[in-house]
Amino acid sequence: MSKKLTSRSEDYSKWYNEIVMKADLAENSGVRGMMVIKPYGYAIWEKMQSILDKMFKDTGHENAYFPLLIPKSYFSKEASHVDGFAKECAVVTHYRLKNDENGKGIVVDETAKLEEELIIRPTSETIIWDSYRKWIQSYRDLPLLINQWANVLRWEMRTRLFLRTAEFLWQEGHTAHATKGEAIIEAEKMQGVYATFAEKFMAMPVIKGTKSVNERFAGALETYTIEALMQDGKALQAGTSHFLGQNFAKAFDVKFTSKEGDLDYVWATSWGVSTRLMGALIMTHSDDHGLVLPPELAPIQVVIVPIYKSEEELTAVSAMAHEIMDELKNKDISVKFDDRTTQKPGWKFAEYELKGVPLRIVIGPRDLEKGTVELARRDNLTKTIIEKHTITETIIRTLDEIQESLFDKAHQFRNDHITEVNSFEEFKTVLEEKGGFLSAHWDGSAETEETIKNLTKATIRCIPLDTPSEEGICVFSGKRSKGRVLFAKAY
Amino acid sequence: MSKKLTSRSEDYSKWYNEIVMKADLAENSGVRGMMVIKPYGYAIWEKMQSILDKMFKDTGHENAYFPLLIPKSYFSKEASHVDGFAKECAVVTHYRLKNDENGKGIVVDETAKLEEELIIRPTSETIIWDSYRKWIQSYRDLPLLINQWANVLRWEMRTRLFLRTAEFLWQEGHTAHATKGEAIIEAEKMQGVYATFAEKFMAMPVIKGTKSVNERFAGALETYTIEALMQDGKALQAGTSHFLGQNFAKAFDVKFTSKEGDLDYVWATSWGVSTRLMGALIMTHSDDHGLVLPPELAPIQVVIVPIYKSEEELTAVSAMAHEIMDELKNKDISVKFDDRTTQKPGWKFAEYELKGVPLRIVIGPRDLEKGTVELARRDNLTKTIIEKHTITETIIRTLDEIQESLFDKAHQFRNDHITEVNSFEEFKTVLEEKGGFLSAHWDGSAETEETIKNLTKATIRCIPLDTPSEEGICVFSGKRSKGRVLFAKAY
Ligand SMILES: [Zn+2]
Ligand SMILES: [Zn+2]
Repeated sequence: MSKKLTSRSEDYSKWYNEIVMKADLAENSGVRGMMVIKPYGYAIWEKMQSILDKMFKDTGHENAYFPLLIPKSYFSKEASHVDGFAKECAVVTHYRLKNDENGKGIVVDETAKLEEELIIRPTSETIIWDSYRKWIQSYRDLPLLINQWANVLRWEMRTRLFLRTAEFLWQEGHTAHATKGEAIIEAEKMQGVYATFAEKFMAMPVIKGTKSVNERFAGALETYTIEALMQDGKALQAGTSHFLGQNFAKAFDVKFTSKEGDLDYVWATSWGVSTRLMGALIMTHSDDHGLVLPPELAPIQVVIVPIYKSEEELTAVSAMAHEIMDELKNKDISVKFDDRTTQKPGWKFAEYELKGVPLRIVIGPRDLEKGTVELARRDNLTKTIIEKHTITETIIRTLDEIQESLFDKAHQFRNDHITEVNSFEEFKTVLEEKGGFLSAHWDGSAETEETIKNLTKATIRCIPLDTPSEEGICVFSGKRSKGRVLFAKAY
Repeated sequence: MSKKLTSRSEDYSKWYNEIVMKADLAENSGVRGMMVIKPYGYAIWEKMQSILDKMFKDTGHENAYFPLLIPKSYFSKEASHVDGFAKECAVVTHYRLKNDENGKGIVVDETAKLEEELIIRPTSETIIWDSYRKWIQSYRDLPLLINQWANVLRWEMRTRLFLRTAEFLWQEGHTAHATKGEAIIEAEKMQGVYATFAEKFMAMPVIKGTKSVNERFAGALETYTIEALMQDGKALQAGTSHFLGQNFAKAFDVKFTSKEGDLDYVWATSWGVSTRLMGALIMTHSDDHGLVLPPELAPIQVVIVPIYKSEEELTAVSAMAHEIMDELKNKDISVKFDDRTTQKPGWKFAEYELKGVPLRIVIGPRDLEKGTVELARRDNLTKTIIEKHTITETIIRTLDEIQESLFDKAHQFRNDHITEVNSFEEFKTVLEEKGGFLSAHWDGSAETEETIKNLTKATIRCIPLDTPSEEGICVFSGKRSKGRVLFAKAY
């Protein structure tokens, strides 16, 4: 496969797909809309998982596991929830195959039909709340703070690797609380955890806000979101946290006795992020040379490539490489020495550039004489010669710099792409010519939101948390507005 | 829920179910045959996962993720494989639900019928080898050493929590090699990894061996197994590793160009362990008081329970508890201080006994005066008074002792339950009266194996790796035998 990518300006969407494929992150499988996550892509996801898992545990959550299949009837119990999810579910109707009597291979055994169809979970509120009824009796059982790492399935018609796939991997938190206030605090706290994760580890700036009624999760009273901006000016919803009120408690009859002896329904939240974050990570930092990874999430942080002409040169260079490796590993830096003799240095340079390895060390015979190595940064493609005895400190410092610089660059880009607009003409012009977030007054009605979406494809990404309240006039309807919200075209 | 268990001698099977439920490990869900793994049970599984994952990576494997759903036609490609798995599969036939026109709730949308049915993976050889065809061209691409952590589904008619459930969690390794010899070495190596894990971390002695042809994995040329013995004298297959020859490479047309330029099919292995190990862990060590956990896998290794009558006593005891906690945490010992005021000490003692926490520290006002604490071991139920200043060293040493002692006890029991039998009468008598493994001569024929199974329910658990070859006479047929094999009734 050629290592040359289509450029972003040429065809952004093609550029994205090529990075995913050529950097060995994922590929389509033989099953429509379902991807294979390849080892290099999965290693990045594992880093995300392990950091998030620790953040969840540090905030008091425990993991558990609930069934993949959900009885059809469970979905009908929460009315708005079924409307939101019923249209896109994989349905299990039979539990056996058999050899065809007419020699046509294997066929479904019609005698093994389920009495009630089972649905592959699109999300697990229903099956989890069916368990919570058994787990919660008293205020002593609350709060119940549970997370699940799982695969889920939503039958998507148009799919894109990582961004929208029928099956995806995610975590889903499901918590139960004695009071409304506690549940809201939990939902907000988890939005904060997601924002910290996105900014600190993915180096991806996000805007915290709430969703408009139209864009809320099916069954939620409030949806908290973090919204990121991709390089093509489209927004990406990177994580959501929902305050579910007592909807699921009522649907599944989950009551508790309070300290005072009253019986009441419990209050709920749910929150999740998925392998979609991989798509966000790729699109936030990568360039026309390939993937760019923040050091905090890079499976290989430093690669060492040897340059040599003879066996003896390779031996000498390898000795130095191993010394450096040992030193770096002692500092918990993940380093790979690529001493394959089957590939030339130039091929290796292109390979690790494509795969977004943050730092490359090149060691040749002349470096041995001089006690130096060449250090190349993936993010800004600069090279420097450094003295060997300073290498560990230089690498630690440079990895930090890269992490920070990637955030700053993305932050600058994001801030440059929030535009205040004050008329619908301006709205449409900026949306088409510049893209990004449009900060506009909105009258608060679902009708206006819907019309704007139909006319421009832009949706309300969020009502930002930190916006000063400012009276104004709706950019579309001319009616009164209580404050600006952020519109954008979105993934 | 009462904390009293049915005893093992009274009803072993009931005892097992009660431990699983009362120790909060798992419970049945509303979906037939599918369990909910509760937080405490899942925490043990997470420990198993993280240790195994490290062992896999240390032996050169990488993780990846393949689709949950497999097209029906893939199963037909490897003939013996489809026979082994086709009878017990969940089949997805539709991809949409809709509101019933006659108001009967939600129903399957018949217009959304799949052209080809999709099967929920019972194991992933077929979908993985369909990818490997694209990944493998040359000897440079080999060996390919991949593992997947996933849920799988096999439609079981009679299910038991952890031991046999329709959906279960597992890991499945799938490797591809240039030579037959390399693939066999890999299969044997992973059997070794499983044996080390079982003995070192689960404190569960296992016998390494190979399966008879009858008991092999569907599609394998050789199945390597580790077999454990439960306290009721029944064997449990704790992990298997398969040498698959070129069967899947031929079925999915996976060829590679060798160094010499020849084109040949690659050689394969697969290997897996599952949440079934949870059942094995429970049944190996637990007693009539509840779960007993080896320290290496205990989510809580030490629990501290305070004894107090007044607020001031609680404050003083808590101060000492926190000192001890900090010290233990510094040594990476997981410790919980249960200072809930809603439960009495006696209730807490029973709770942690039921949950198998290896060590309990009790601190009361008199301990403060004397500078001592009471230390109780869960495994042998002994208590000692120790001086506070020796507590960390004592706990580290005692946790090691418990780990070793659990292994020794199980090892002794297992060795006491391997009985050489030399006639079929003896075979039947020992099987019924003593149970355990029967070391018996067998003529090597599938017919004899099948007949013995039908007559006694005992199967060949394995042909042990370390048995000296010894000519003999088959215990059933009287024909010549090349060596003894191990029979047992099994889970
Ligand atoms: Zn210097
Ligand atoms: Zn002393």
